[in-house]
Amino acid sequence: MNSSMIRVILGHVLKIEAAFLLLPCLIALIYREEEGYIYLCVAGGCALFGAFMSSIKKPKDTALYLKEGCVATALSWILLSLFGALPFCITKEIPSYVDSLFETISGFTTTGASILTDVEKLSYTSLFWRSFTHWIGGMGVLVFLLAVIPLSGGSNINLMRAESPGPSVGKLVPKIKSSARILYVIYFIMTTAEMGFLMLGGMNPFHAVTLSLGTAGTGGFGVLNSSIASYSPYCKWVITVFMILFGVNFNAFYFILIGKVKKFFEVEEVRWYLGIIAAAILLISINVYSIYGNVAATVQDTAFQVASIITTTGYSTADFNTWPMFSKVILVMLMFIGACAGSTGGGIKVSRIVIMLKTVKKELNNYSHPKSIKKIMFEKKALEHEVLRAINVYLITFIIIFTTSFTLISLENHDFTTTFTAVAATINNIGPGLEMVGPTGNFAFWGDFSKIILMLDMLAGRLELFPLLILFSPKVLKELLYDNLKLSVSNK
Amino acid sequence: MNSSMIRVILGHVLKIEAAFLLLPCLIALIYREEEGYIYLCVAGGCALFGAFMSSIKKPKDTALYLKEGCVATALSWILLSLFGALPFCITKEIPSYVDSLFETISGFTTTGASILTDVEKLSYTSLFWRSFTHWIGGMGVLVFLLAVIPLSGGSNINLMRAESPGPSVGKLVPKIKSSARILYVIYFIMTTAEMGFLMLGGMNPFHAVTLSLGTAGTGGFGVLNSSIASYSPYCKWVITVFMILFGVNFNAFYFILIGKVKKFFEVEEVRWYLGIIAAAILLISINVYSIYGNVAATVQDTAFQVASIITTTGYSTADFNTWPMFSKVILVMLMFIGACAGSTGGGIKVSRIVIMLKTVKKELNNYSHPKSIKKIMFEKKALEHEVLRAINVYLITFIIIFTTSFTLISLENHDFTTTFTAVAATINNIGPGLEMVGPTGNFAFWGDFSKIILMLDMLAGRLELFPLLILFSPKVLKELLYDNLKLSVSNK
Repeated sequence: MNSSMIRVILGHVLKIEAAFLLLPCLIALIYREEEGYIYLCVAGGCALFGAFMSSIKKPKDTALYLKEGCVATALSWILLSLFGALPFCITKEIPSYVDSLFETISGFTTTGASILTDVEKLSYTSLFWRSFTHWIGGMGVLVFLLAVIPLSGGSNINLMRAESPGPSVGKLVPKIKSSARILYVIYFIMTTAEMGFLMLGGMNPFHAVTLSLGTAGTGGFGVLNSSIASYSPYCKWVITVFMILFGVNFNAFYFILIGKVKKFFEVEEVRWYLGIIAAAILLISINVYSIYGNVAATVQDTAFQVASIITTTGYSTADFNTWPMFSKVILVMLMFIGACAGSTGGGIKVSRIVIMLKTVKKELNNYSHPKSIKKIMFEKKALEHEVLRAINVYLITFIIIFTTSFTLISLENHDFTTTFTAVAATINNIGPGLEMVGPTGNFAFWGDFSKIILMLDMLAGRLELFPLLILFSPKVLKELLYDNLKLSVSNK
Repeated sequence: MNSSMIRVILGHVLKIEAAFLLLPCLIALIYREEEGYIYLCVAGGCALFGAFMSSIKKPKDTALYLKEGCVATALSWILLSLFGALPFCITKEIPSYVDSLFETISGFTTTGASILTDVEKLSYTSLFWRSFTHWIGGMGVLVFLLAVIPLSGGSNINLMRAESPGPSVGKLVPKIKSSARILYVIYFIMTTAEMGFLMLGGMNPFHAVTLSLGTAGTGGFGVLNSSIASYSPYCKWVITVFMILFGVNFNAFYFILIGKVKKFFEVEEVRWYLGIIAAAILLISINVYSIYGNVAATVQDTAFQVASIITTTGYSTADFNTWPMFSKVILVMLMFIGACAGSTGGGIKVSRIVIMLKTVKKELNNYSHPKSIKKIMFEKKALEHEVLRAINVYLITFIIIFTTSFTLISLENHDFTTTFTAVAATINNIGPGLEMVGPTGNFAFWGDFSKIILMLDMLAGRLELFPLLILFSPKVLKELLYDNLKLSVSNK
């Protein structure tokens, strides 16, 4: 294993985090909050530790194979969270370090599940950092790294592959660096656009900024205890539309950026994604109409909740826990479907679901025409065997991780729905589930053991399962330990 | 489509059902119950209708392709249930025909989910027929047909394939007819053995017979409202052991039959199956020990419930609804795992689960050794690509049917756990679920629409999904309709 190269990457990641931590300091300056000093110290610590890590030993070889890409990605995200959690804990705004870590991992993985019972008590500085972690995690810190730092070696694709969601990694342009930059440019423009639209609607600038960061990363941390319920209908609609937009495959936005607007609507995954959203809004609206009694309010709340859940954002304007079971079941299904691949959203991803449906259709067809050799088509291309295989393995791994977590946290003896949807809401990076972890509840009541399981679920979900499994495989852990022991011996 | 040949098979199936219906008549004779006349009439109706169907038009071609095998199997099971439900309804013991049909499909598919609130009110005749449907459905009526009726044409394997559970169909011996006979011989011997052991323990012969039929088919209909709770510990242990035995792959029993006892324990699926049972008993025993306070009672009840759920039988001696959530979650997992392929049990099947686990293990290995070409081994053979593909499609189809049913029956607005486990308990052919459909509950409260969905789930589960999907595909329905219209026109 190329441990030196992994260490260099981790060093870079920490230096980037140090830079990111300066932004909450700026907020502290504006609102004259003392918490800013703590953020500044943590930023300094990150920068020092990062510089130290990337300078211990120069890597002889800069190549990163798939396994190393996975290990580097998983470790980056863990390190990022371990440091990112420090300010919450040191400022005593979240006294327990496990809770701080939960909140931070929930932020970076764009889950939005919170252990806070009263969000409004937090300082502006911490509220901003909380929402900003969503933005960083949404597009991915390694994609950012690839966009700004010149890494030599031709195998950086393995870093992007490990961090980017979806069944196959699409580079927008031949050079990875340019692809990563284009992604961040689109991301930045859209986030700013949302902030503008919200402020146009008269929203307080701080709220507009934090909520836009949370929407962009499909995160879900709000700044009010009532999440989004108390804002104006105009603002709710703006957030609804932007949530849906951030759940779209960014490759499709690239078509708009290069002027091929028509091609945007030809992306098969986007059409399915919009179709599923429309169908869900229709079905739930009919089902909950009697609760609201008027069409505008029904459609507003339904559209918001559907957009929030399928994009795995997790903002809420209504307590869907009180909706009829049919609506709740549809929402739970949307939790698993998730957003488009190549978006900032989580879940299994629309493209995987569509390909799975097509597999079944083909199988049924084969019963009638056993000798048919038709291939499954997706996005106008015949799907390769390897992609199908990868999707199947993904599905099985997903089920294994899901059931294992479900069993482990069931030891706390909460009800079936709470336990089931707590795992569903974290592994799919959504935030709220049903019952005790519903939109008006939170994750504070779980014990530390369950919190750790749910943190691992959030990370596994965000990194699409394998990087974390690879990191925690005994063989890889042994190799890492061995390499580091060797290093410390040779340094003496 | 070879509609004539399908009609001939359906005719034979009805004639066999007529013969089976004579057994409850015998019980009526013994207990001098008037219900016997009704069973006799229905038997007569079945025989007449069967004879009519197989004589309308001789098939020119006796070949049955895979599609036709599926259609014939699905239709056979539906017809079998439609006629089998008549006695319950005509005797007014179950006044509603939909309820009678639910009970009958639950019987034939060896589910054991009941709409009866008071089982003990039924006549001996109907209680016997109810348990006997388990026995017929357990090994399969088409396997029976293949064992007794000489069907010409070499493609009967497609009938057996459509009805037998598991990822690949194993003929025990080269001739299908002999394979089918051997299966029924093993089945008969084991059922009789259980009856003997139960009567040795002093159980009333009627109870011994019906409970053995229910165990053999891994069905779960009891003859007392308390299911198995009121019998002696000895009888409970006998039933526990036989439930586990009937969940074993019958291919393994064939090794014993031909004297290769050692080979029985070398079957990989059986080793996993016994391992899972042992692990589940251990974990649940520790979890529920505090409720019982003594080891013997704890292990007795735990072993019974674990055996009952994993083999998808559904008898109960304890209300596991009141157990801690951890134990319930393990039981729900066992519901999905199910018994061995080639047994009379339902669920996804141990072999499929094991192969899925191995797929993930291989994938993780591939990250470290991308060029490795090691194949997945199962039962000492390298798994063929086709088997893997079929398992994946099965899993996806299972999830689709599960979620569709879950959504549809959620319209009745019962709680999440009841709705979820009602589908789990029917599609996996178990019987009891949790909450309202738990061991002390029943399925009576569901509306007719939901009952029909759950009936289809039971059939889909028993026939391993595809035969039913093939039958209900618009193309096949159209072909069937067209063929029959043509026939009725040509007859005029």
